[in-house]
Amino acid sequence: MKRSRIGLLLLLESASLFAQKPARLRILLPQRIRLLVRQRVDLVIEARNASGRDRFRVTANGADITNRFAPPTRTELDCNGTAGLVYRADLFEFRQPGNVKLTVELTSGGERLREERNIEVRPFRLPPTPRNYILFIGDGMGNAYRDAGRIVARSVETRPGVPGIREGFVDRPLEMDQMPATGFVMTYGAATLVPDSAETGTHWSTGNKPVTGMLAVFPDGTDCRWRRPGGKDLLEAIRDNPRIETFLEYLKRLYHYRTGNLSTAFIADATPAAQGSHVATRGATFEIARQYLENPMLDGSPAFDVVFGGGKEDFDPDVRADHRDLIAGFQSKGYRFIRNATELKNLGPSAGKVLGLFRRVNNVELNPNGLTVKVNGNMEPAYDKLGLLGRANVRPGSEPLPDFGVWKDQPFLNEMTRKAIEILAGANGDQPFALQVEGALIDKESHANHAAGTIWDVIELDQAVGVARSWSRAHARRPTLILVTADHDQTLSILGVADLSDRDLTDRKSVVTDRGTYYRDSAVNLRSDFGVGNLPPEISRAEDRTGFPDYQDSDGDGYPENREINGKGGKRLAVGFRTGGHAGTSVPITAEGPGAWLFTGYFDQTDIFFRSAQALTEDTSLLDKWLDAARARQAR
Amino acid sequence: MKRSRIGLLLLLESASLFAQKPARLRILLPQRIRLLVRQRVDLVIEARNASGRDRFRVTANGADITNRFAPPTRTELDCNGTAGLVYRADLFEFRQPGNVKLTVELTSGGERLREERNIEVRPFRLPPTPRNYILFIGDGMGNAYRDAGRIVARSVETRPGVPGIREGFVDRPLEMDQMPATGFVMTYGAATLVPDSAETGTHWSTGNKPVTGMLAVFPDGTDCRWRRPGGKDLLEAIRDNPRIETFLEYLKRLYHYRTGNLSTAFIADATPAAQGSHVATRGATFEIARQYLENPMLDGSPAFDVVFGGGKEDFDPDVRADHRDLIAGFQSKGYRFIRNATELKNLGPSAGKVLGLFRRVNNVELNPNGLTVKVNGNMEPAYDKLGLLGRANVRPGSEPLPDFGVWKDQPFLNEMTRKAIEILAGANGDQPFALQVEGALIDKESHANHAAGTIWDVIELDQAVGVARSWSRAHARRPTLILVTADHDQTLSILGVADLSDRDLTDRKSVVTDRGTYYRDSAVNLRSDFGVGNLPPEISRAEDRTGFPDYQDSDGDGYPENREINGKGGKRLAVGFRTGGHAGTSVPITAEGPGAWLFTGYFDQTDIFFRSAQALTEDTSLLDKWLDAARARQAR
Repeated sequence: MKRSRIGLLLLLESASLFAQKPARLRILLPQRIRLLVRQRVDLVIEARNASGRDRFRVTANGADITNRFAPPTRTELDCNGTAGLVYRADLFEFRQPGNVKLTVELTSGGERLREERNIEVRPFRLPPTPRNYILFIGDGMGNAYRDAGRIVARSVETRPGVPGIREGFVDRPLEMDQMPATGFVMTYGAATLVPDSAETGTHWSTGNKPVTGMLAVFPDGTDCRWRRPGGKDLLEAIRDNPRIETFLEYLKRLYHYRTGNLSTAFIADATPAAQGSHVATRGATFEIARQYLENPMLDGSPAFDVVFGGGKEDFDPDVRADHRDLIAGFQSKGYRFIRNATELKNLGPSAGKVLGLFRRVNNVELNPNGLTVKVNGNMEPAYDKLGLLGRANVRPGSEPLPDFGVWKDQPFLNEMTRKAIEILAGANGDQPFALQVEGALIDKESHANHAAGTIWDVIELDQAVGVARSWSRAHARRPTLILVTADHDQTLSILGVADLSDRDLTDRKSVVTDRGTYYRDSAVNLRSDFGVGNLPPEISRAEDRTGFPDYQDSDGDGYPENREINGKGGKRLAVGFRTGGHAGTSVPITAEGPGAWLFTGYFDQTDIFFRSAQALTEDTSLLDKWLDAARARQAR
Repeated sequence: MKRSRIGLLLLLESASLFAQKPARLRILLPQRIRLLVRQRVDLVIEARNASGRDRFRVTANGADITNRFAPPTRTELDCNGTAGLVYRADLFEFRQPGNVKLTVELTSGGERLREERNIEVRPFRLPPTPRNYILFIGDGMGNAYRDAGRIVARSVETRPGVPGIREGFVDRPLEMDQMPATGFVMTYGAATLVPDSAETGTHWSTGNKPVTGMLAVFPDGTDCRWRRPGGKDLLEAIRDNPRIETFLEYLKRLYHYRTGNLSTAFIADATPAAQGSHVATRGATFEIARQYLENPMLDGSPAFDVVFGGGKEDFDPDVRADHRDLIAGFQSKGYRFIRNATELKNLGPSAGKVLGLFRRVNNVELNPNGLTVKVNGNMEPAYDKLGLLGRANVRPGSEPLPDFGVWKDQPFLNEMTRKAIEILAGANGDQPFALQVEGALIDKESHANHAAGTIWDVIELDQAVGVARSWSRAHARRPTLILVTADHDQTLSILGVADLSDRDLTDRKSVVTDRGTYYRDSAVNLRSDFGVGNLPPEISRAEDRTGFPDYQDSDGDGYPENREINGKGGKRLAVGFRTGGHAGTSVPITAEGPGAWLFTGYFDQTDIFFRSAQALTEDTSLLDKWLDAARARQAR
């Protein structure tokens, strides 16, 4: 920061110096903001180069709401010496549905500034029997990822040497394949074609678009401060952005839903954080964890009744810059704390409120900014939790062996999900609840181009979806909307089948790129379409080479063991990654339960928020019934 | 062929020689065959090593249908000297819906052989007002391809230097995005995870799965002959497979639907061929074109009233091995023949029957097998038809300049579609019709990893979809089911945005792989997710680099010109291909019109056939109405 703070304050006092610079007014809300009725949002207005002796007036559809704003604070904006006045009406609620014209007027040095924003406020009226809400996020789980999970998990039906009569049909599709309604979600960020997980999480948790890296807030004029680390107001600049209430906070605050937030990542990671924290950067994980305990939308009480995931380091006094013990904080508010699968299993349905942290990073090292650790403690991917490690299993050579440290007893996501639902619904199963479940390592393993790590984690998520679907069927008197989607895509492609016992293919291993997935890509080179009008002599050979993978699930746990068969390999899915980054493709969504049919078509990711609200409130029963009947008549 | 034909016949006469080899019986139908009531299928039964003096009996649910079979022919099977008897009941129709147990018994040398097949026969009852059917196929148009089309075609809304307020929303989605119902189609072949276009075409055209390369037939014991070219019965072995009637043939034969078949490929290519020919290999294009004229399911009359596409060479006497003039053949049956866009424009709605061939390959060279030419005459991709060729347009360097030859006046697919619909529906617009429209070059350009060729062709297909949707709205008294899907995926990924005016990025061009798409991949390297828990100092820079593409459509034809802006480049979509082949991913389907809602969920590609039949016959009106109302209430 070139200009000293004292110098700046002197400048601000000396208003005449700004006479040359035109004053500007900015409402810190997206141009296209949409809200639910009573959804809390900070109304923040920045005035640049204003005199400080201005007349300030805000109306909503003509009604004066100026007195809802606190006196302005003075601060430098844009990190370039611009004097700013910041007016705030925190935690504002629009109490009636409809279109609101928000008008801000500021008279500054004789000039009259005016700024407007049209705000769409949508209704929300809970029906007499509240509906439960379970949102599954496969992080990075685009279209090909779901397919890869299906192909690996379900190929067990055809055993090697027993061709069976599948003939290309999938008889037992994934749990998520079986959900009746499917749609496509466009994940574009406010300013970027290819989004990150923080902004996408904010899309469905708030119905609005922040910018990359932000969690349930909108950008402001002090973001430049934390974007250039080192300033002493770093944390303040991260916390001062206009906040917007999330779906889980909203349901908890206004309708007493019990809430849960599960992830296989460190629990302060972007996707879970999008439902319970409000910070300008996902990088501030200590602050994110704090807001889980002291949630600003819930007036300082915890955001979630059940929290399960990794990342204990963000809660520990020996790690956190503020040396607070957040686990003790949760315990003082009546939470049980658990740290492994055994303790998870022992929880009863009346456990009430539970914090479960199943992993801490092996070596803690802080970032210089003091906001987070350098590497967080994600739980291990399913492939490793299953112990598919030795020579008997075909361990992909490019995927590193895990180091569990002392965290050897980690639960699977389906166990976490089952227990969370039981606890949230309570002993009688009739407490309304809203739950977000993230399969986080699909994304993280895909970043590293670890094919097995990614695909086995898709299966892990699917087993969790199965738990929710079964529970929902068994508790039909409390309807449950179940959604399964992704935050964004990555670049996996389904290329073909590699026969590991085929010497030709083994020899061709060297053609594999240095992306280095174990699944050899070479098989696919035999399968390129044979061009226009040619009659290829090798066509029958190409067929012999393809066929289907023959993974086996000998122990019946739903996860194939990936073993060599008769010491000879076997047929494996051949996949390839294009990059180690995200992709901007539309992602699938599948829906089941009341109003599931609202989730077909192509739609924006923010619409998940509003369609979820519709599904929880509108009477969709007649439609649901008709469509169930239509579905029953559907071919196959 | 090692064994001589005469030797084989002697062997067949001398039955005692076969005493050691056990007789075998095979019904040449898939184990999981499903049919519509009265859908024609050849019942073919092969008996290996049978005596020739056998008692042969076939029953359907106990009723004897033996007399429907012609006397058996003797032939070598499996190309290994196996003596075969082949029993055929050609063009068989099951006349009642329900489950049929087909039982074949053969007494051979005292041994009694028995083989069974369960056949599911589904109902089809046309309503008083027949519904039209338009099926759009984007060949290779998986999920990312539709997205790429949307991003390029619709980015024109934000002009360079005019940020607008899109904020990441797509206000004017593609025509195909706007269709209300969406689903996912699993494209697996009978014997292969990654299918070709012949088998996938057969999936939706017949409801059943052949094997790779086959068109509306099932494999038989003489396929080995044509798979090893050179035998004199090559064409015979390609034509003798069990045939199954296609949807368009079925609607034409039984319900007098008028039919159309359009493609930007040579018209005897696999996707159009799947609706009107029955051959064991897509490579037999001369035979495919002949069957368009003399269709076996339609007792020798033409399969389609309107045929538009490329590939005139397959119809020309100077090219065809049999020297037949198929164009004259069509003309003698009342067809008009046209060969360019001008002649297409001049057609009136009462044109009746039209053959339009808008391309012949520049240099004809025959394959040695005499079944086809070496390279067929596809129409040019949209990018080339638009003339985006010069330096003013950013011609992707890796995509070759076209050589139109004398075929400079080619129509776009939307013009072909508009005219086909008008002619099929007739002057009064009330003749029921069924039409297949293929955007073929999406696949062919993707095989070559030509990003622009591929993406501009997605836009071309979408404009054709727009024509159908408009026509349908204007002719609502004749309901039209419109489907848009792909036959299979390819490996495109949406990676990000490349700013061509950014010198840093230009310098990084060398990191692009030799796949060599013009859209530089380098931009995406700035956008990889920034890992776990880090606060990256460069985050704002990364945002600046991304944003959205800024293609312009100055002439308003719906296709951006891909021009440099102020001589400085501009922002372009960055994509990448993983291979030049097909992918095994599920592909999107979108549906509009009566029964559109049957097409949500994950389902097998053969279900397109049966769900289409349901949509054309069942009363879905109440459901359609309810869902339209629900859709109207849908968020955004």
